[in-house]
Amino acid sequence: MMIIDNLQYANWSEKIFKQMREGKVDAVHVTISYHETFRETVLNFEKWNLWFDKYSNLIIKGSTAADIDLAKKTNRTAIFFGFQNPSPIEDDIGLIQILHTLGARFMQLTYNNQSLLATGCYEDNDAGITRMGKQVIKEMNRVGMVVDMSHSADQSTIQAVEISERPIAITHANPFSWHPALRNKRDNVIEAVVSNGGMIGFSLYPHHLKNGSQCTLADFCSMVAQSADKYGVGSLGIGSDLCQDQPDSIVEWMRVGRWSKTIDYGEGSSDNPGFPKQPDWFSDNRDFKNIEKGLTDVGFDKDEIEAVMGKNWYNFYTDNFIGLD
Amino acid sequence: MMIIDNLQYANWSEKIFKQMREGKVDAVHVTISYHETFRETVLNFEKWNLWFDKYSNLIIKGSTAADIDLAKKTNRTAIFFGFQNPSPIEDDIGLIQILHTLGARFMQLTYNNQSLLATGCYEDNDAGITRMGKQVIKEMNRVGMVVDMSHSADQSTIQAVEISERPIAITHANPFSWHPALRNKRDNVIEAVVSNGGMIGFSLYPHHLKNGSQCTLADFCSMVAQSADKYGVGSLGIGSDLCQDQPDSIVEWMRVGRWSKTIDYGEGSSDNPGFPKQPDWFSDNRDFKNIEKGLTDVGFDKDEIEAVMGKNWYNFYTDNFIGLD
Repeated sequence: MMIIDNLQYANWSEKIFKQMREGKVDAVHVTISYHETFRETVLNFEKWNLWFDKYSNLIIKGSTAADIDLAKKTNRTAIFFGFQNPSPIEDDIGLIQILHTLGARFMQLTYNNQSLLATGCYEDNDAGITRMGKQVIKEMNRVGMVVDMSHSADQSTIQAVEISERPIAITHANPFSWHPALRNKRDNVIEAVVSNGGMIGFSLYPHHLKNGSQCTLADFCSMVAQSADKYGVGSLGIGSDLCQDQPDSIVEWMRVGRWSKTIDYGEGSSDNPGFPKQPDWFSDNRDFKNIEKGLTDVGFDKDEIEAVMGKNWYNFYTDNFIGLD
Repeated sequence: MMIIDNLQYANWSEKIFKQMREGKVDAVHVTISYHETFRETVLNFEKWNLWFDKYSNLIIKGSTAADIDLAKKTNRTAIFFGFQNPSPIEDDIGLIQILHTLGARFMQLTYNNQSLLATGCYEDNDAGITRMGKQVIKEMNRVGMVVDMSHSADQSTIQAVEISERPIAITHANPFSWHPALRNKRDNVIEAVVSNGGMIGFSLYPHHLKNGSQCTLADFCSMVAQSADKYGVGSLGIGSDLCQDQPDSIVEWMRVGRWSKTIDYGEGSSDNPGFPKQPDWFSDNRDFKNIEKGLTDVGFDKDEIEAVMGKNWYNFYTDNFIGLD
């Protein structure tokens, strides 16, 4: 079994890296920047360089799918990097290759707001991919950085699929038809993404789950089964959106960054401003076995479970983390 | 024959890249930054990324010695990068690995002035390697970035040799005993560097040459022969310091950067403020054959000429461009 979680944003520590090993997680796509500038993003890479040195028995830096094989062989977890907002490239298209060289493999064209590149899912109007956005998609295609539209608006996402010459991804979201959250994706959006070789990673973040923190494992796995029927099992993976051990100040940073002087609660509310409680069957990296079991219980066979738990992302990495470096 | 020039700072163009091919130059160590900040250095890497893409038939980016073999095989020149001042790392030791990942392989601990790390050769007093300098040497050793002391003061250089756990280099300078310029190196300094597996690259910059622009090929090659007797032929290479096609505004940038509001002429003078004229036997990358011939004329055999023209630097790259990435 290969386990790949295609989105986490934890408050990283030796404890979490050890839990990854206990959970036999072979690779994680880590959000390394939200609203950081280029220089701040470089500071985040510096921090990870220290961790790769200090915890070299637990984690390795991932550049290509081959690093997952190496990680598996040496009983470690490969860490791949991505941005949830294009702020690290600022207004400089040349920074895409620079950041790819430093290790970035995914970039969302937007977080919740309009960016220089596209429209976020919280905006009233979706103007689609901008002039710079078109150039950026082309450059991301060239260097081997995957376009991630998890937080983008519908038309922007569909246009991104049309413009991109490579598959794109929704790394962490669920179907809107299952749970109508603003961040979840309508069928036509998911269809557009997967029709082009793209992937969707299912989220375990309570605001994306039916009944939130009370969502049952059976409900979640039934949704995966329905998605397999609709989109084909080969386009599905996990992108848990696990924000383990983060203080609530971080969810405020994720939502508000530096763009507003007034608090914006995003998927939360003034009654419930902090991180929501995880469902009890998915608290940390040791709980992927629960999902495996849940998938068995809703009728997936062994090959299908392997595909959803990691093999599909592995194949996607193999095909898309091409690169110049 | 393998030709490696271990220092150039030209006004890069297709013309120059073509001349490298005409001259059968297999690798060049290019100064990518003088006094640039980190962000400005990244802009320089971006510019080179464009050139590697545009002139992919002439040049490739060099990371390890194996890239020289690839360049040779595909009839191109491998470009390796270095800094003549530690300004790109600012006061942040974590930037050493970041810049190594982006391609930097040499860094001078100083240009002509005192830096955060060591003392430059134009200062009145040489305080040796600083507290940060000691940490930086250790980190450069760890990531595989070579300490270059071409512009540093004597005691700083000797201390750098003592502190460094890897060989260091004087990439571009000549013996002071041959031509007593402030930038040329006294015997004890060269001896310290080569005793530790280090290298000296001989400079073709007129201010470093006996009789300046009028220096004869025979004089230059005799100096190389004397150096081979003193230091062993295995520690010698070329670091031409060729600044082809640069306007005189650039020599002012090299000397003054942003550190003074008053002009500092460095090795020049108010009578002769610009770039000096190259000796007629070394104008550009097509002239390395003249040096080969000159070395033959002063009695070097074929193996020795190959060593000085490139093989020694090749071996040095092989041993020292180890790396984490």
